[in-house]
Order: sequence, then structure tokens, then C-alpha cells
Amino acid sequence: MSGQIVDAIVIGLGPGGEDLAGRLARAGWSVLAVDEHLVGGECPYYGCIPTKMLLHESRRADPDWDRVAKRIRGEATDDWDDRAAVERLEGTGATVVRGHAAVDGGPDAAPGPGGTTVTVTPPDGGAPRGWTARRAVVLNTGSEPAVIEVPGLPASAAWTHRDVVRARSLPGRLAVIGGGPLGCELAQALAGFGVRVSMLVRGERLLSGEDPVAGELLADAFRANGIDVRTSTQVSLARETGGGRPGPMVLTLSTGEELDADRVLLATGRRPRDRVDVDEYCRVLSPRAEPVVGRYAIGDLTGAGPFTHTSMAQSALVARRLLAEDDEGNGRAGRAGRDGHGQGPPFPVRSVPRVTYTHPEVAAVGLSAGTTGTGDGTLRTARVDLAGSTRGWIDEVAGSLTLVAGGPGTPDAGLLVGASVVGPHAGEVIGALTVAVHARMALAELDRIPWAYPTLHRAIGTAVSELVE
Amino acid sequence: MSGQIVDAIVIGLGPGGEDLAGRLARAGWSVLAVDEHLVGGECPYYGCIPTKMLLHESRRADPDWDRVAKRIRGEATDDWDDRAAVERLEGTGATVVRGHAAVDGGPDAAPGPGGTTVTVTPPDGGAPRGWTARRAVVLNTGSEPAVIEVPGLPASAAWTHRDVVRARSLPGRLAVIGGGPLGCELAQALAGFGVRVSMLVRGERLLSGEDPVAGELLADAFRANGIDVRTSTQVSLARETGGGRPGPMVLTLSTGEELDADRVLLATGRRPRDRVDVDEYCRVLSPRAEPVVGRYAIGDLTGAGPFTHTSMAQSALVARRLLAEDDEGNGRAGRAGRDGHGQGPPFPVRSVPRVTYTHPEVAAVGLSAGTTGTGDGTLRTARVDLAGSTRGWIDEVAGSLTLVAGGPGTPDAGLLVGASVVGPHAGEVIGALTVAVHARMALAELDRIPWAYPTLHRAIGTAVSELVE
Repeated sequence: MSGQIVDAIVIGLGPGGEDLAGRLARAGWSVLAVDEHLVGGECPYYGCIPTKMLLHESRRADPDWDRVAKRIRGEATDDWDDRAAVERLEGTGATVVRGHAAVDGGPDAAPGPGGTTVTVTPPDGGAPRGWTARRAVVLNTGSEPAVIEVPGLPASAAWTHRDVVRARSLPGRLAVIGGGPLGCELAQALAGFGVRVSMLVRGERLLSGEDPVAGELLADAFRANGIDVRTSTQVSLARETGGGRPGPMVLTLSTGEELDADRVLLATGRRPRDRVDVDEYCRVLSPRAEPVVGRYAIGDLTGAGPFTHTSMAQSALVARRLLAEDDEGNGRAGRAGRDGHGQGPPFPVRSVPRVTYTHPEVAAVGLSAGTTGTGDGTLRTARVDLAGSTRGWIDEVAGSLTLVAGGPGTPDAGLLVGASVVGPHAGEVIGALTVAVHARMALAELDRIPWAYPTLHRAIGTAVSELVE
Repeated sequence: MSGQIVDAIVIGLGPGGEDLAGRLARAGWSVLAVDEHLVGGECPYYGCIPTKMLLHESRRADPDWDRVAKRIRGEATDDWDDRAAVERLEGTGATVVRGHAAVDGGPDAAPGPGGTTVTVTPPDGGAPRGWTARRAVVLNTGSEPAVIEVPGLPASAAWTHRDVVRARSLPGRLAVIGGGPLGCELAQALAGFGVRVSMLVRGERLLSGEDPVAGELLADAFRANGIDVRTSTQVSLARETGGGRPGPMVLTLSTGEELDADRVLLATGRRPRDRVDVDEYCRVLSPRAEPVVGRYAIGDLTGAGPFTHTSMAQSALVARRLLAEDDEGNGRAGRAGRDGHGQGPPFPVRSVPRVTYTHPEVAAVGLSAGTTGTGDGTLRTARVDLAGSTRGWIDEVAGSLTLVAGGPGTPDAGLLVGASVVGPHAGEVIGALTVAVHARMALAELDRIPWAYPTLHRAIGTAVSELVE
């Protein structure tokens, strides 16, 4: 089923896919852009944007759920209607089709002689249709919530973040299962609106993927917000107590305790919808670990960080690469099977930052002492307690800044390779560290920078001076 | 008058001088550290620290002047007593002497055969005493307020920032003369405590040394705070109306209008106490523009930015340089006249950031479009309106981020050479730009950085992409 022929097919129109389809179309390529969900992806409709709007509103002097719910519905998501996004993408010249798209033979199958064929199945059960991409197929199929099963929990009482973002009213008591970035952000936001929030976290701390001090400082802050944080705790059973009314229930916990709740928010992470291996140029690898000609993947399924900024930066990289072929080649026809030669620099996976937008914010980039283990002696770290830094003292801040340097005798010796920050505006402080890690800057050079006094990020200088001495 | 002989004399114990004296003493040098004022300088007693404490308190839900006045007196300045600082410095092994110090022959006079002689005059009118530095004299004599004369203004009603910081109670109506960083910070802080503040600014805008948009956005914010901002306005005359009681007065303005006030805050800038020329290694230059052997200057009098972070970074540079002599040489005696050969990198004057800690904050580093003129075509700029950035929109922020790149055909072509930011946490956002300007990073490289979404500093990426296209 070869069907209509285009230059490129982009499957999945989350931020990177939408961006890439537009870039290629604006450059004159014929582009098919396919998604079975909303064009724009999770980020604008259910993810980054509405959750940050909730956090912003929750920090006002007079948080008002109606106000932010209206803002999300009216200003941010157009009532979860992607018409404007579709029109914007079509305005670039791309063809936008709603449906489920699958590469014939699988995501890592080699293209045929005429290119790569993709079958698109419309959501309404219509007949599947084939499309062929002469030059490139880009997979951006994203991720979906990794929902866990809680025995006895009725579907009507089990919320995901999507239900929170769309809620017109809030429950009185909410149990959040999961202590990752999304669970933490939503727990704090909803507590700000007066919801009595309990967090039930399987691991020993919040944000288990981050510097351990982050989870500790965040738990302190959450408890000061009135959030009931319970670590090393799972839910064994839910039992409704409302006599059939949705809502009131008792949760039996793994600790043997019971907890009352009106809703349960399942914030137990996300998993990619597809599994592919990619190289550092976002090229999909065949089962023999060779790049499949004209096949790329960007976004959550690449494993380079499930972030809008990963996806957008990968889109820019793939677009540069594909459009460089134009500059090199002699026209477009018959170029199937040819891959770009303009290598350019690879995707800088080590300089992908991550930020949790709680108060305090938690941010990190590059290698972390926690995940790689300082005990093995290959990394050196220096930590600054922000409460003892000048600005931290003035502003009565709790926080921490940790730098990670390459170990002696390694190629990274004397270089900054990672950092983590917990504190107010940590998400802005990580900017400086993102640049430094990206540029593989020498500690000796960082040590010469006259960091503005008295900023919070000046603590970078304190930590650097410990590492260079 | 050669007197007692030491390795080094540090004149002026503001942040850099105190730091440098300690560094040299800890390395085993005999050091004389002299100041006629408080050890630690303006920053901890009257500058950065207490003014930022005022700003911090003024932004609480319930600003309380008594609370912050007590905090400044008790916690920050020990009632403006530098005993702890003196003891800390003496603990490094340095000899601390109170008095006015002057290099014999003048700050840029060549040393004699035994070294440089300095005469120290005690503050109590005691006999002057001579000291000789075998190896180095470092000048860190700082700056003092450039106070203007207002006809008719009684001394009791004329405040400097020192009076604000020491005040036990606040005036009802305050006229601030001057629209620089200090005037802006204190105006906003005091308005936060309920003082009715008028700003009388000679120039066309607030923060005339910064990107013009900074002054405009700040004036908008100040007016929203209830501050009466009057630009292109000077005070011609003050007339007391309290019948001899200090306080009530009428100011006649250059516009012909009259203004009631209880106090006038003179915030009309600072000027260096000494004038010397220095090279990029902080070496004092002779009238023939040659480095004077063993003579250094750091801090405000170098013209590299009147900031604590300038002074501290220059201290580190001079200490590295002087201590490198130890590593090279064969002992210490008879080394007068010898200057360090370990050049090392120069002081990075272009990567000195500056921050005004108002709401919004105003921060800049490196070259600015405003001061060098984009009209001449040697610089390229890109501006992002932060209100239109994702985070700015979510958080309902007013602000601006401007990047400055080297012009085509210049050695700086394609490099980031300056930046300015106005907005919340601009002082943290400037951290990333400080690193990038310091490292002379290529725009093409900055364009590859996956800036965390949705931070404010992600607007850097937007501006960079405009400059690389």
C-alpha cells in the first residue's frame, strides 16, 4: 500500500513533531503530519502549560480555581480544541491528517526502493490509507501515563493529571499516588487551592530521580504547606464509603494505616508509546544497530528526557540535517535511500536540563552524583547550602546547589559535567549551569567568572572554588 | 619614613581588600591591612546586604520596619561594629590597622629600592607611621557618595542610603533624588513599607545606564507601586515648613512644580576616592602607562564596575598572580622590584554582570546595544518580549531580554558579546548569559542548547535563533 507520495512524514504532533513538520514544509518539502491526538501534544493541553498555570494561580494571595480553570479552558487550550494549531501547521504547507500511523514493517524496518511506506488509520474506523515518504519518516509518538492498578478503586474516583487540568471543581481530599515531578507539582498546586492533599510515595523520598537533598527539602516545604507526605507507602485497597455516590473512600495503605480521600490522582510516571533505539543524531537504528536510511525519532521515545525542550531541540537538529541535504544535493527526486552527509554536531544529551516547578524549584543538568555514585571515585562533587550563601541568608531561603566534576585521570577531569539546584528560581539558576555543562567548561575558567553579587547563582562560584582548590 | 617592613600592604578593606589580605596572609605572607572605615566595607554595613534585606522584608505580606531594622542592626551589622571582621582577618595572620593610608609619592609612584613605603595616619590624630611593603601594595580605596547640593536643604533632612539603612523609623513622605540602581532599590523598598515616595530623576528615564526598555518597564512597575516617578526633573530649592522642626518641607522643582516631603534621599551615584589607571591584570600604571612594580588596584577605583563581585574577582586574580611568584621564586627576601611573571588570564572586564534588585529585576552583562549604538552597524541585537514568551505568558510577567552579537566582519562576528534582561529573577537569568559572554560562545553553539521549558531563560534560545538565522 504505497499510496500518495510525499517528501517526509512526521508521526506524532507533540511539540517537536509539530515544529519539525512546519520547518520542513516551510522549506518547500511536501510533508504529511499525522496524529491521532491533539496537534501540539500533551504540553499545551494537559502538560507544561496548564500545570504551570495552576501553580502560578495557586501562589497568588487569593488563589481562585474558577479563574484558572477558565483561563486554561479559554486562553490556553481553546476548550481542548486544536483547530488553531492545525490551521497554523497547515499554513506552513504541511498536510495534516488525524489518525494512527504505523511504518510498514515496524518503526525500525528498512525502507523500500521508493521510500518508506506508512499506513494511516483514521480514528473514526475509516479505511486505512497508505502514504510513502521519499526522504524521511520522523517518529514522535510520545508517551502515555503508566497507570497502576489499585484494587477497589472505582474509575470515577481515579484521576490522572488530565482530569485535574479539566476539573471544574476540586475534591476536598485528594490522595496523590506518586512522588515524581508531576505528582509533586500537582500536589503543591492543589494544596494551594485548599485541597487536603496526601502524597503516597512508593520510594523513600520525593523526586527519587534527583539529588537526595531535593526530596528532603521538598518534603519539608510540602509539610509546611500542610501536605501529608508519606514515603515508602503504597495503596493496597480502596473502599468506597459514599453508598454509591462517587467520592468518599477509604484507602488501605501498605503500612496498615487507613486514609480518607475523595479522589485519587494517579501520577505514577509515563512510558513511551513506541520503543526504538536511536543514535546521537536521532537516527533510528535497525536491529543490527545501523541507522535506518531516512528514519528519525525525536521526543519522549528517544529516552533523552521526556521534555518539550528535548523534543524541540531534536526537531531543530533533524531539520538542520535534512535541509542540509537540500543544500548538498541536486534536487529531490529519486533520493530515497540517501541519507544526509552533513553530520553536524550530535544531540547534546548531557546538556538536557530538567526542572520541577514546585516551591522550592528542583533543577538539574548533566551527570549527578546520586545516579552515578561518588563512591566509585570517578566524579568529584561540591555542595553549597544555599541557606548559608549571602542571598540565601538575606532571603531566608532553604536550598542546595551541587556541582559535579569529572574525576582525575578521566577525559572529563577538571570539567563541569553536572549540577543540581534546589531553591527558589532553581529553574533559572540551572541556565548558567546548562551553558557551562554544554560547553564542557573547565572549572578553572568558571572560577574566573565574576558572578553577580548577591544573586543565588553566585553559589556556583563558591562550589567551583572548592573543586579547583 | 620606611618603618616596619612587611610583604604586602592592602589599603582599603572593602570586600576585595579584606579577601586579598586574608588570602596572602594565609599563604604565609606578612600583611598590613589598613582602613579608616569599617573592615568589610560598604557592602555588608550599608550596601548590598542591608539594602537587599530591606527589599526582602518589603515584599513580605506584612512588611515590618522594626523587624528588618533589628535584623540589620543585630544580625547583619552587629550594630555597625566590625570587631568580628577584624578578628576574622587577624585570624589569617594579617596585621589590621585603622587609619588613612597613602603611598609615599602618590598611588602611581615607583617603589624605592627596599619596596613601597606607605604612611598610615591614625584616625584619632596620632602620629603618622611608615610601613614598607617589599612585594606589593594593593589599593582598594573604594568610592564615596557623589552628593549634590540642594539650596535650602537642611542637613538634618538630607539622607544618604546610610541613613535609610540605620533608620529606626521612616518618614511619611520621601523624595528620592537620583534614578540609578541604589535610588531605585531604596525607592521601591520604602514604598513597600508605606512611605509615600517621589523620585526626582534628572535624566529621561530610570537606570539611564541600562537598556532603555529597563527604565520604561521599571517606571511602569514603580507607578503601579504608587511611586511618583518624575523624569527630566531636578530640585531647585528646598524650603522648611515645620517652623524649625526637622522634616516638613516644600521642594521647588525645575519643572516649576512644588512637592511636599519630609526627607530627601540623595542617591546621586558614587565616585572613586582615588584615581589610578590599571591594566587588565589590575596593575597600576605609571604616568608613562607602564605597570608600577608591585602595585595593584582592585575594586571601585579600577573602573571595572563598582560591585562587590568585581572586587572579589580582582582579589582572586591578584592573589593568584602574587602567590605564583612564590612558586617561581627562591624565597622572599630581596625580591622588591620584581614583578610576577605568571601572567595568567586577564581580568574579564566584559563578563562583569550588574543587577538592580528591584521588581522587576534589571540585569546586564557585556556590551549593550544602547551604549555602543546599534545604528553604526557594528553590533547585532535581538529582543524578546518576555510577556510573549511561554513562561512570561503563564506567569503574567512584563519583561524583556536582549542579546547583543558581534557585527559581521569583526573579530566578534557570530559571538555573543552582551545581554540585558528585565523581569522577575533577571538577576538569575543573567547567570547563563554571563557564562556565555565570558566564554565568548558562538551563537551557533548557543542555538543547540536545549534550554529548559518553560523557564524564563528559555527566551535566550528564542533570541539566539533570531541572530543565527
